Amino acid sequence: MFITFEGIDLSGKSTQIRLLKEYFESEKKKVISVREPGGTVISEKIRDILLDKKHLKMKDLTEFLLFSASRQQLTEEIIIPHLRKNFIVLCDRYYDSSTAYQGYGGKVDLKIIKSINKTATGHLVPDLTFLIHISIEESIRRKKLIKKNEDRIERKTISYFNKVTDGYLKIAKNDKDRFVVIDGTLSKEEIRSMIILSIKNFSKKSKSKK
Amino acid sequence: MFITFEGIDLSGKSTQIRLLKEYFESEKKKVISVREPGGTVISEKIRDILLDKKHLKMKDLTEFLLFSASRQQLTEEIIIPHLRKNFIVLCDRYYDSSTAYQGYGGKVDLKIIKSINKTATGHLVPDLTFLIHISIEESIRRKKLIKKNEDRIERKTISYFNKVTDGYLKIAKNDKDRFVVIDGTLSKEEIRSMIILSIKNFSKKSKSKK
Repeated sequence: MFITFEGIDLSGKSTQIRLLKEYFESEKKKVISVREPGGTVISEKIRDILLDKKHLKMKDLTEFLLFSASRQQLTEEIIIPHLRKNFIVLCDRYYDSSTAYQGYGGKVDLKIIKSINKTATGHLVPDLTFLIHISIEESIRRKKLIKKNEDRIERKTISYFNKVTDGYLKIAKNDKDRFVVIDGTLSKEEIRSMIILSIKNFSKKSKSKK
Repeated sequence: MFITFEGIDLSGKSTQIRLLKEYFESEKKKVISVREPGGTVISEKIRDILLDKKHLKMKDLTEFLLFSASRQQLTEEIIIPHLRKNFIVLCDRYYDSSTAYQGYGGKVDLKIIKSINKTATGHLVPDLTFLIHISIEESIRRKKLIKKNEDRIERKTISYFNKVTDGYLKIAKNDKDRFVVIDGTLSKEEIRSMIILSIKNFSKKSKSKK
């Protein structure tokens, strides 16, 4: 099973991935978690280029192609081999991030994104995607609380991030079978329960299909 | 005018670019030369990832997407702005390299390469492309003479490079108006003269079209 997590910065994705990984481990399931961009030696080096604050001249399309390169390497080197060995793979961001950020947020043509997303993932589609939705104002509020140092992408404008959050909701609406949208202002425990419930429902449905 | 140079390692591209740049400068023309992968701060960092000998696990498609990201940044940041200011731009490798190396040499689908090449260059096509053709045996002979330290791509197999050289010839054959194929075993001076003659013919043709 391949499960991805989407949402803007500080929506709580990493926390939920950690909690879900612990849950699967307590159930004696084989599980790994990876993050995007990154997750392999090569992809982590691409991550450094993407997030470097000095790279202000980076074009939106270059950004997208770098994410795609990182994603392709992660998919072929880690995700697919683990799915073949029946691991549950949890991924912090996947191609929906590109649609939301470089597509809805940036200026890259959505048709081009869709086509290159398919190429870079070898047409791999997550079984389930959790979109943890918070507003950009909430993200900024949380950022202030923890005094987070912002990377190049996090420094983009509020209007950019409003387009990203709207974009995420559109993507989820167009793919209701795969997406579960969760209100990110709920408590950590409430979100955790909703995620586990959705996974149980998904597994039941998959079994009844067989 | 946008002129690109193609050919395998040690075919003599860089020497000819240097000589041609000097020729244009002596003619009081505005001219710059750039190289791929590289040519901008961001693209040079991508170059480091691409050529690092330790990155043996890099997938062909990741390699292609990284070249495309580097190319997109170089095209938007340097090539197009200079063409707009009426510079002559000389480029050491451009998208034909991806068709030859990752396409014919590697395992990436040629249709995917064609489509992403168009995206990454914003449909920019060189006015003239010089393919300096030498065999892989000749390249190896020259390499031994100068005891060159090989990068990750240069370390690929002879069968890979035979596919690349054959691929280059096919690409040139399919695009005769743009390509000039030159025997890379001719002397430096002979090659230089052929290049300058071809550029003069091209300029005459362009003028007569107007």
